[in-house]
Amino acid sequence: MSDPRVQTFRPDPSEYVWTFGGVPPLARIAPGTILELFTEDCFAGRVRGVDDLVSEVCEFPYVNPQTGPFYVEGAEPGDTLAVHFISVQPARDWAVSTTVPLFGALTSTHATATLQDPLPEVIWMWQLDRDKQLCRFEARFGDWQVDLPMVPMHGTVGVAPANLEVRSSLVPDAHGGNLDTPEMRAGVTCYLGVNVEGAMLSIGDGHARQGEGETCGVAAECAMDTVLVVDLVKGVPCPWPRLESDTHLITTGSARPLEDAFRVAQTELVRWLETEFGLAMLDAYQLVSQAVESPLANVVDTNYTSVAKIAKQYLPPMPAMRDTHARLTELARAYRS
Amino acid sequence: MSDPRVQTFRPDPSEYVWTFGGVPPLARIAPGTILELFTEDCFAGRVRGVDDLVSEVCEFPYVNPQTGPFYVEGAEPGDTLAVHFISVQPARDWAVSTTVPLFGALTSTHATATLQDPLPEVIWMWQLDRDKQLCRFEARFGDWQVDLPMVPMHGTVGVAPANLEVRSSLVPDAHGGNLDTPEMRAGVTCYLGVNVEGAMLSIGDGHARQGEGETCGVAAECAMDTVLVVDLVKGVPCPWPRLESDTHLITTGSARPLEDAFRVAQTELVRWLETEFGLAMLDAYQLVSQAVESPLANVVDTNYTSVAKIAKQYLPPMPAMRDTHARLTELARAYRS
Amino acid sequence: MSDPRVQTFRPDPSEYVWTFGGVPPLARIAPGTILELFTEDCFAGRVRGVDDLVSEVCEFPYVNPQTGPFYVEGAEPGDTLAVHFISVQPARDWAVSTTVPLFGALTSTHATATLQDPLPEVIWMWQLDRDKQLCRFEARFGDWQVDLPMVPMHGTVGVAPANLEVRSSLVPDAHGGNLDTPEMRAGVTCYLGVNVEGAMLSIGDGHARQGEGETCGVAAECAMDTVLVVDLVKGVPCPWPRLESDTHLITTGSARPLEDAFRVAQTELVRWLETEFGLAMLDAYQLVSQAVESPLANVVDTNYTSVAKIAKQYLPPMPAMRDTHARLTELARAYRS
Amino acid sequence: MSDPRVQTFRPDPSEYVWTFGGVPPLARIAPGTILELFTEDCFAGRVRGVDDLVSEVCEFPYVNPQTGPFYVEGAEPGDTLAVHFISVQPARDWAVSTTVPLFGALTSTHATATLQDPLPEVIWMWQLDRDKQLCRFEARFGDWQVDLPMVPMHGTVGVAPANLEVRSSLVPDAHGGNLDTPEMRAGVTCYLGVNVEGAMLSIGDGHARQGEGETCGVAAECAMDTVLVVDLVKGVPCPWPRLESDTHLITTGSARPLEDAFRVAQTELVRWLETEFGLAMLDAYQLVSQAVESPLANVVDTNYTSVAKIAKQYLPPMPAMRDTHARLTELARAYRS
Repeated sequence: MSDPRVQTFRPDPSEYVWTFGGVPPLARIAPGTILELFTEDCFAGRVRGVDDLVSEVCEFPYVNPQTGPFYVEGAEPGDTLAVHFISVQPARDWAVSTTVPLFGALTSTHATATLQDPLPEVIWMWQLDRDKQLCRFEARFGDWQVDLPMVPMHGTVGVAPANLEVRSSLVPDAHGGNLDTPEMRAGVTCYLGVNVEGAMLSIGDGHARQGEGETCGVAAECAMDTVLVVDLVKGVPCPWPRLESDTHLITTGSARPLEDAFRVAQTELVRWLETEFGLAMLDAYQLVSQAVESPLANVVDTNYTSVAKIAKQYLPPMPAMRDTHARLTELARAYRS
Repeated sequence: MSDPRVQTFRPDPSEYVWTFGGVPPLARIAPGTILELFTEDCFAGRVRGVDDLVSEVCEFPYVNPQTGPFYVEGAEPGDTLAVHFISVQPARDWAVSTTVPLFGALTSTHATATLQDPLPEVIWMWQLDRDKQLCRFEARFGDWQVDLPMVPMHGTVGVAPANLEVRSSLVPDAHGGNLDTPEMRAGVTCYLGVNVEGAMLSIGDGHARQGEGETCGVAAECAMDTVLVVDLVKGVPCPWPRLESDTHLITTGSARPLEDAFRVAQTELVRWLETEFGLAMLDAYQLVSQAVESPLANVVDTNYTSVAKIAKQYLPPMPAMRDTHARLTELARAYRS
Repeated sequence: MSDPRVQTFRPDPSEYVWTFGGVPPLARIAPGTILELFTEDCFAGRVRGVDDLVSEVCEFPYVNPQTGPFYVEGAEPGDTLAVHFISVQPARDWAVSTTVPLFGALTSTHATATLQDPLPEVIWMWQLDRDKQLCRFEARFGDWQVDLPMVPMHGTVGVAPANLEVRSSLVPDAHGGNLDTPEMRAGVTCYLGVNVEGAMLSIGDGHARQGEGETCGVAAECAMDTVLVVDLVKGVPCPWPRLESDTHLITTGSARPLEDAFRVAQTELVRWLETEFGLAMLDAYQLVSQAVESPLANVVDTNYTSVAKIAKQYLPPMPAMRDTHARLTELARAYRS
Repeated sequence: MSDPRVQTFRPDPSEYVWTFGGVPPLARIAPGTILELFTEDCFAGRVRGVDDLVSEVCEFPYVNPQTGPFYVEGAEPGDTLAVHFISVQPARDWAVSTTVPLFGALTSTHATATLQDPLPEVIWMWQLDRDKQLCRFEARFGDWQVDLPMVPMHGTVGVAPANLEVRSSLVPDAHGGNLDTPEMRAGVTCYLGVNVEGAMLSIGDGHARQGEGETCGVAAECAMDTVLVVDLVKGVPCPWPRLESDTHLITTGSARPLEDAFRVAQTELVRWLETEFGLAMLDAYQLVSQAVESPLANVVDTNYTSVAKIAKQYLPPMPAMRDTHARLTELARAYRS
């Protein structure tokens, strides 16, 4: 396709980045650009079989490589970057998951420190059937195997953080990053507040699927071929990452303890209804209280991430974020045809 | 109906109980009994309009009245009580919600203590259309109104606690109690570990619907007409409340901080798959990690409650809890016909 | 001593109580009564050597026996009970500590649930030199031994709880209970808000000494001979347990997560300065912020307990709690002479 | 003094740094160098009276300026940097404290998000009597004033972080940073694990004194004249900041929730006794449990910081960290004479 607004990036391993902030742009793009991207899996592709223990084949901090960053022309602090996912498809026919010593929700960790021994390090290879959109679980210590639906998504999407900081790609926070929510999938628009000129968007950490909370700390991790379109919402701030689908408004909060992540996400949703849908703050609080869905994203990363969702059909019929989701959905339709 | 196994209880206000444990039984019932119950709303029916402020019309600790307790013959510590909900229907055509000073997720509280002023106390009356199974939200400070689906449920279901304790009906914990999860609805079987002879089952706190997390601390509260069947699973323990639907296994954890509630619920689900479905512990951990749904129940009560759900179709085809859910579903079908 | 105001209680093991609330009084006493009490250790005296594993010799929930409850004549909800410790001395020449599986701060627990194995169960016997007021640590897995100062204290002091509840003696909360703070020692007055008629004071859980936070979950546990005087502060409420020494005002908060316990204790201290010392709320906030000492009490019990202390010399020279501490200190002096 | 090992730095405001990591060194120094430093207060000296509201005179993220970083020759990842404070003295005769909207322990914050209004923004000027080493509190809303002892300390001491990160100077974590513990004072040696070549030491955030927990979020903030000596402990790692005084070993943990900070600090202390004092892990756990002091540092920053202290007199008589504290104390004595 020779459309100048479509650009393709398949970074060389030497081009991966491991942080949000602190690195020069891979490319400069104009708002409206469609990006066809390859992203490597969170282990930099080094775990390819059940004997490739992460503790042996990976070299910290070189995990969770990101494709980017992209400098978006015209993006300034106070604006919001909109990233609409046109398609997210596994780039290989397998994904990998594993326990990692002292990482995950059902083990003590470096922060929830105890004197106990860690759990054993075990790898599971998941076979992906991309035609049928299925992921196959195979037990390591028995003979159970079962197909689960593939729900391809990106665990990590973010921009350069505020406050002069550079954050590891393992961190979820107000700049996005390692949110690890299954909501980050094709058809959805992700809104990220811009903290530095150019925004500096990066993306990675594909998951063929993950449970809510990402309990063991590792999803069905895979390389991805992803198409997205980037846009700007000038002059509209976005203090925490938000998502919009055809049917729902979605907010996120990333913090510890988990109730603080919940408080952030729910407060953001109340404030969104107040700011853009004309509801009084207390009315928004009441409507959210009865209508919200609150699926957990991750309870394993350096911050935990809680998600709050409300169906648009319960809200006054007004466009959010200057109707960006509708506009980008239209662009996605044009691209696919 | 003259079936001796069907009993009807519509307690007089003087018969309400306000705790789990510490009160004599309302009645003794045999396993297999079908109970047709009336439960009053959490405000003991005292809030009937927008001027009936809870802080004025309710008298603490006389909130969240329970219908019960029922002494289940033969129930002993080490057994599990099974409660299958045949139907849960609002008993009136309205429900009520409110902010309560220093209670709820988006305010400081008596535990998350700050020096700030509380939020204003405001009441919302929700009109219920029981034919169409809809609840109508009407803004207090504007003119937005909208119908949401009715999803009738019980916020509070529990037995007498362990450790010689008596707990307020506002508390969710290992004995059940005020779990406030939308999963507690018709068609579901709730499993509760028995701590004292007779188990001492009570139930209350009907919600026409609630959001996940019950953000403001109060659902669309209503009196309920509920039919359930009670059974025993002898010799099978249940350390934390579990639920089973036709399609899912569901565990709960109630604790603070919220990540501890998450850890309990997820650990319980892993242990359930290990104990009753033949999976090795680490395989169960992996399968849960990719397959679990983790909708929050409440982030407002004295303990927060997290829920973990897995679809049965992903598990080896084995009956759980001695196939009690299937058996009770059959009884429910017979009752309805 | 034939002073009618001095009463002695050395309960028979059949008289121990295991809860706050829910049990009839051991005796009725008048305000001003001096009590000479024996309290058994938290293991009911069953752990007497390194082979007496708690998991084998103790029978849950029969741990942490309390001496009491004492019905204090005239005590009504809204009053405050004052308990002044005249002397606290170990009743034997040994104390015991241990690890307990899935209990303590540096292990996963039933609430901070993980899939890891518990730590080994190991007992340490501490020799007490009551003349020199020393406790001897002896390593179990090496030959290090060292004397630490004895700082005898009561881990558990409380009244019947509010809200119709009965709580295990292992629980610290607004009614006092298992606070496990080293501040609860001879020379100190403990204030507890009265929730039920007669207050129903109980006391137990002597520690020859403990570290701040009670890290492994178990102090140097010992039986105690304790003398205290009980009084009432009529019409003065006390929402959370407070202590007063000759030099300090001390507040406590018991909650999870630990920052909520901190928030409660610090807010209580600010409110105390505001209510009884004439400081504006924000001035009290500032003075506390620069002057407070915040030693942890326990980070292991069902609620964690945080303590806030301020030196009286930094406050306007006013009596607190109607000068009760000074009055009871005088009574103690009279008793000793 | 013409000793070449003594160097003096009084940075120009244009030289302040606002992060750990991400900035070039102010100077290169050899191990053993004595640094005479000026550090500006956390408000960059802009708050000089009760009308200089932080929200008006400060410009985020330009708060908490640091003096440094110093590239320490020979420092490599895996080494430990030792910073011994020879003297810490306020550089002016006043200090300042304030409430900051949505910051502090007794208010909702950006993470503990609620819908309530923030507390008012109020400034307190503290007069310092450097001869008598006193700080004077003066009420803003009444006439109480009182002198508190001056305990000059540095809230912020740290090195460049690991994992390619750059962190705001407001953050406490494994690299040190904004620990805000009163233990960081003259006579103490601070140990920091080296993450990058040269370590990149910076220091700032002087406090004339602070309460434990830094309740309102702001201490008695002042510019400082500080003398310290820097050294290296080659080949000895230090996963979290440690301190050593003549009498105590001290560990820190910075995390959320606060119990995780506690767990880290206590685990670090157990591990220190195990690694350098020859105690078995479980014996160390027991000794710490009965001997530890656990004063809180801060419960307000992006991570909360908990401190664990043990008296050296309770430990086998062995030098810690290659006897670095004794050696630097000797150097300090030589400098002062």
